[in-house]
Amino acid sequence: MAKQQQGGQKAQDVNKESITPRVKDYAQWYLDVVKQAELAEHSGVKGCMVIRPHGYAIWEKMQRELDDRFKATGHVNAYFPLFIPLSYLAKEEKHAAGFAKECAVVTHHRLKTIDGEVQVDPESKLEEPLIVRPTSETIIWAQYKNWIQSYRDLPLLINQWANVCRWEMRTRLFLRTAEFLWQEGHTAHATEPEAIEETHRMLGVYADFAEKVMAVPVVQGAKSPGERFPGALESLCIEAMMQDGKALQAGTSHYLGQNFSKSADVKFLSKEGKLEFPYATSWGVSTRLIGALIMTHSDDAGLVLPPKLAPIQAVIVPIFKGDDEKVRVMQEAEAVFAELKSQGIAVKLDDRDLHPGAKYYEWEMKGVCVRIEIGPKDIEKGSLCLVRRFVVEHEGESEQDLRKRKKTFAPRAEALAGMRALLDEMQQQLFERAKTARARRTRVIDDLADFERFYKEEGGGFAWVHWAGSPEDEDAMAKKYETSIRCIPLADQIPEAARGEGKCIYTGKPSAQRVVMAKSY
Amino acid sequence: MAKQQQGGQKAQDVNKESITPRVKDYAQWYLDVVKQAELAEHSGVKGCMVIRPHGYAIWEKMQRELDDRFKATGHVNAYFPLFIPLSYLAKEEKHAAGFAKECAVVTHHRLKTIDGEVQVDPESKLEEPLIVRPTSETIIWAQYKNWIQSYRDLPLLINQWANVCRWEMRTRLFLRTAEFLWQEGHTAHATEPEAIEETHRMLGVYADFAEKVMAVPVVQGAKSPGERFPGALESLCIEAMMQDGKALQAGTSHYLGQNFSKSADVKFLSKEGKLEFPYATSWGVSTRLIGALIMTHSDDAGLVLPPKLAPIQAVIVPIFKGDDEKVRVMQEAEAVFAELKSQGIAVKLDDRDLHPGAKYYEWEMKGVCVRIEIGPKDIEKGSLCLVRRFVVEHEGESEQDLRKRKKTFAPRAEALAGMRALLDEMQQQLFERAKTARARRTRVIDDLADFERFYKEEGGGFAWVHWAGSPEDEDAMAKKYETSIRCIPLADQIPEAARGEGKCIYTGKPSAQRVVMAKSY
Repeated sequence: MAKQQQGGQKAQDVNKESITPRVKDYAQWYLDVVKQAELAEHSGVKGCMVIRPHGYAIWEKMQRELDDRFKATGHVNAYFPLFIPLSYLAKEEKHAAGFAKECAVVTHHRLKTIDGEVQVDPESKLEEPLIVRPTSETIIWAQYKNWIQSYRDLPLLINQWANVCRWEMRTRLFLRTAEFLWQEGHTAHATEPEAIEETHRMLGVYADFAEKVMAVPVVQGAKSPGERFPGALESLCIEAMMQDGKALQAGTSHYLGQNFSKSADVKFLSKEGKLEFPYATSWGVSTRLIGALIMTHSDDAGLVLPPKLAPIQAVIVPIFKGDDEKVRVMQEAEAVFAELKSQGIAVKLDDRDLHPGAKYYEWEMKGVCVRIEIGPKDIEKGSLCLVRRFVVEHEGESEQDLRKRKKTFAPRAEALAGMRALLDEMQQQLFERAKTARARRTRVIDDLADFERFYKEEGGGFAWVHWAGSPEDEDAMAKKYETSIRCIPLADQIPEAARGEGKCIYTGKPSAQRVVMAKSY
Repeated sequence: MAKQQQGGQKAQDVNKESITPRVKDYAQWYLDVVKQAELAEHSGVKGCMVIRPHGYAIWEKMQRELDDRFKATGHVNAYFPLFIPLSYLAKEEKHAAGFAKECAVVTHHRLKTIDGEVQVDPESKLEEPLIVRPTSETIIWAQYKNWIQSYRDLPLLINQWANVCRWEMRTRLFLRTAEFLWQEGHTAHATEPEAIEETHRMLGVYADFAEKVMAVPVVQGAKSPGERFPGALESLCIEAMMQDGKALQAGTSHYLGQNFSKSADVKFLSKEGKLEFPYATSWGVSTRLIGALIMTHSDDAGLVLPPKLAPIQAVIVPIFKGDDEKVRVMQEAEAVFAELKSQGIAVKLDDRDLHPGAKYYEWEMKGVCVRIEIGPKDIEKGSLCLVRRFVVEHEGESEQDLRKRKKTFAPRAEALAGMRALLDEMQQQLFERAKTARARRTRVIDDLADFERFYKEEGGGFAWVHWAGSPEDEDAMAKKYETSIRCIPLADQIPEAARGEGKCIYTGKPSAQRVVMAKSY
C-alpha cells in the first residue's frame, strides 16, 4: 500500500514545481503560471496549443459574457466554412498580401498506403488549393452576395465563433499560436455612417467587457495606417498594459468601407432605387484575452482571476482528524456548499483525500477567489474562516500583516450573506489595482531624452507623446526603442494631462493630439 | 416610391418559392425546407455548408442542452489542435485505414506572388503533412500521455466542441458535408468495466436528449462488426426513423478498449502498483442532428420544431388599419410580449412593415411553435387568437376541421397563463406523433418474401429480423434490398413482439435476438 501511495504522490509532486518570480524572469513566470494552473500547453503539432479544461472554462465564461453582449446589440451567430479557396483570398489584394506568409494550405484530400507506409495520395491533388481561414472576410462576403439584394436586407449583423489559423514560427501560449479560437463579427450596412457607428459600437462592447468583466483597463483608439488590418480603412483597438509595462492589443474593430463588398461584387438596391455596394465592418477577440487576463492580475503564487470569470469562485476545504470530526465537519461543509450554491456562486467542495495544505496550494495556483476553511473549532464558534486569493497591498506592509488581511473570520451567517458582496468588492479591487499599476508606468513625455530614459532606465510603460512622423519614422523609433504606436486614442480616452496640441517628439512637426507609444506583445 | 417598394418586394418574393410536397419528391422537399427556412446552404467551397443564423440558433440550443448533460455527468470541456500529424494518425492502423480516403491534408504554410499571381509557395512545404482532424482520438491520446500517470488521474472525462473534416464527394446539407460541427467526448478509465459503463452512460445521455429534447424516438443498440468505428471494440448508436422510413444514425458511443492508449503509449500506475494501459471511450453527435430534426417533424409548409429547440417559440403578429388602430394594437402586442418574456418564453414581436400574411408564411416556414394574432377585435373581446404550428391529424379529418383546431381563441389571461403548458403539450405531441409514425412503418418479419414485399411494395421502414449471417451475407442483403443492420438493439429496447430466439432470416441459422434492418441515410 505504501508503495502505491508513493506512486500517486510522486505524480502529484511533479505538478508542484514552484513558479519563477516575476522579478526574476517575467516571460518564464508567465509560462509557469500557464502550466502550473493547467491552463494550456504545447501540443505535438508545431505552434498549436492545447487548451486544458481549466483554461477552457475561463474561455467559456468569456464566450457567454461576450455572446450575451453581441445578441443584446442585435447580432446573430452563424457558421461559415473553415476552408477558403485561394482565388477568394486573392480577390482583395492587400488582404491577401497581409496573410500570405502565414497560411496553412490544403492541397490534397486523400491518404494511401504506398510501400507499406501511409502517405499523401499524389492523385488526390485538389484543383484549387484551400486556405485554412486566417480570418473570414472573403468567404463570408462571397455568401453575403446571396443574402443582400435590397436595403431591406441591411444591416446584416452576423458573428461567428470559430478556430482560425495563422502560421507562426515563434509562438507563445495564448498570445501567439498557429491555431487559436476567436469570434469574428462581419456586418454589412447601407451607409458609411452606419458602418462607422457599428465599428465604434463594437469597440465599446469590447472595452466594456475588458473593464467590467476582465477588470482590465484599456485605452480605446485607432491604429496608425501601417498597423491596420489588411483591407481595412480604419482599425480601432483596445490596448491594455501588462504588469511588465508592455502593451497587449486585446481586441480590434475594423471599418472596411466597400473593399470587400466590391471584391465579392455584392450590391444592393438602395431606398433611392440605386444599386450600391454595402459598407462593411469586422471585429474580433480571441483566446489571447486569457493571456491578457493572466498578465494583468496574476502573481508569484499563480493565477488570479476576476470573480466574473472564475470557473470556481469559492472553494470549501474541510479540515478534520478522525471519523467523528469528519462527520461533523463534512455536514457543515455540505451545508455551506448548498447555501452558496443557492446564491448562484460557483462553489466547489474539495472533499478529496489530500492534505489541506496541498489543496490550498492548488486552488491558489488556479485562481479560486475565496477559500473557506472549515474545521471543528469554526463550527464550535459558529464562524467561518475566509481566505481571499489577494488583497491590495499597502505600501511598506509586512508579510504578516498582509496575511492577516487575507485570512479573516466572521460569524457564519454574516460571512455567507456577504459572499456576493465580497466577490463584487474583489472584482472592483482588481480593476482599481490594474489602473494604479498602469498609472505608475504611464508618462506624458515631450522630449526624446526623457523617452529614452523611460524605456532604458525606468522600465518603460505607456508614453503619451505627440506624433507627426511618417511610417519610416515609426520604423526608426521601433528599431531604436522597440516601441510602436499602440493607438491614436479616441478623444474621450485622453487624460487631462495629455490633452492639447504640441510638437512631434521625433520630427518636431506640429501634432494635433498625443498617441500612446509602448513596447508590446 | 412605388418603384423602390417593388424592388424590396421582388427580393422578398424570391424567397417565396413553394416547397415540393413530400409525397412528390422527399429528397427535394428536404432541400426546400433547409433552404426556405434559411437553415443552411451550400458554399463556394466544394462540400462545405454555411449554417445560417436560424439553423445555427437551433444548434446553439442543442449545444446548451447537451453541454449541461455532459457537465452533469462529470465531464469538462477542453480544446485540442485542428491538425493531426500524419504519423499520429498512422499509429492506429485500422483507424488510419478507416479515415484515409476522406482526409484534407495541409502540405504548405505560405503563399507567394509568382508572375503576378498568388500561388502556394513551393518552398514552404511542411516536413510532415498535417491532417485536418476527421476525429481526434490520436491527437488527444498523445496529450493524455502527459496527464495520466497514476490511477488517481483517472477517470479523465473530457469533451471537445469542434469542427471536423471528412472529405465527401456526395454531400447533403447537414447530413453529409466535408466539414461539420460536433462534440467528441474522449475518456480514460482504469478498468474495462468502468469504460464500458461510460460508453453506455453516454449513449443513454444521447437517447434522453433525442427523445426528451428533440422529440425523436430512437432505438439504442450496437453496430455490427463491419459498421464499427475504425479502432473501436464496440460501437453503440441511437437510430431514428425519418418520415420516409429510412434510418438515420443520430449519435454514437464507442468502447475503444486499450487500442489508443497502446498506440499512444499511455500507461498508468494502478492501485495495485502495476503499470497498465487505460481503457478508452469516445462519443459524438453532430450538426447532422439538425437533419434528423427536420426529417422527423417538418411538413409541406416548412419547418416544425419541438418547443425545447425552437429559437422562437411564439411570435406576435399585430393586425391593424390606420394609425388609431395601430396605437391600440401595438400597445396590446407589447404588453403580451412583455408578459410572455417574463415567463421565460422565447417570444418575438414582429412589427415589420409587411402584410400579416407574409409574416404568417415566414414564421410557419421557420417553425415558430405558436403564432399570436392581435387585432382590434381581439382587444375588444379581451381574447387572444392562437395559431399552433401543427396539430396531430385525426384520420379522415377535413382541411377545414384541421384548421379550426389549429387556430383557437381564448380569454387573454387564460391564454397567457396557459402558454407554457401549451408548449409542453406540443413537445409531447411531436414525440407521440413520431412514435406513431415509426410504429406504422415497423414490422416484425420472419420471412424473406415478407421482407422483400415490405421494402419493394410497402415503402419499407424498420424490420425486426433474426440475424446470424456473416459480413458477406450482410453485403448481399445490402445489394439486393439496399438495407443494412442499423443496430443490434440493447435488451431493454426490444418490443414485446420482437423478443426471443429464432432463425436468421437470410441463412436460417439459429439467432439469439432480432436486429433492426432498414435503408438508411
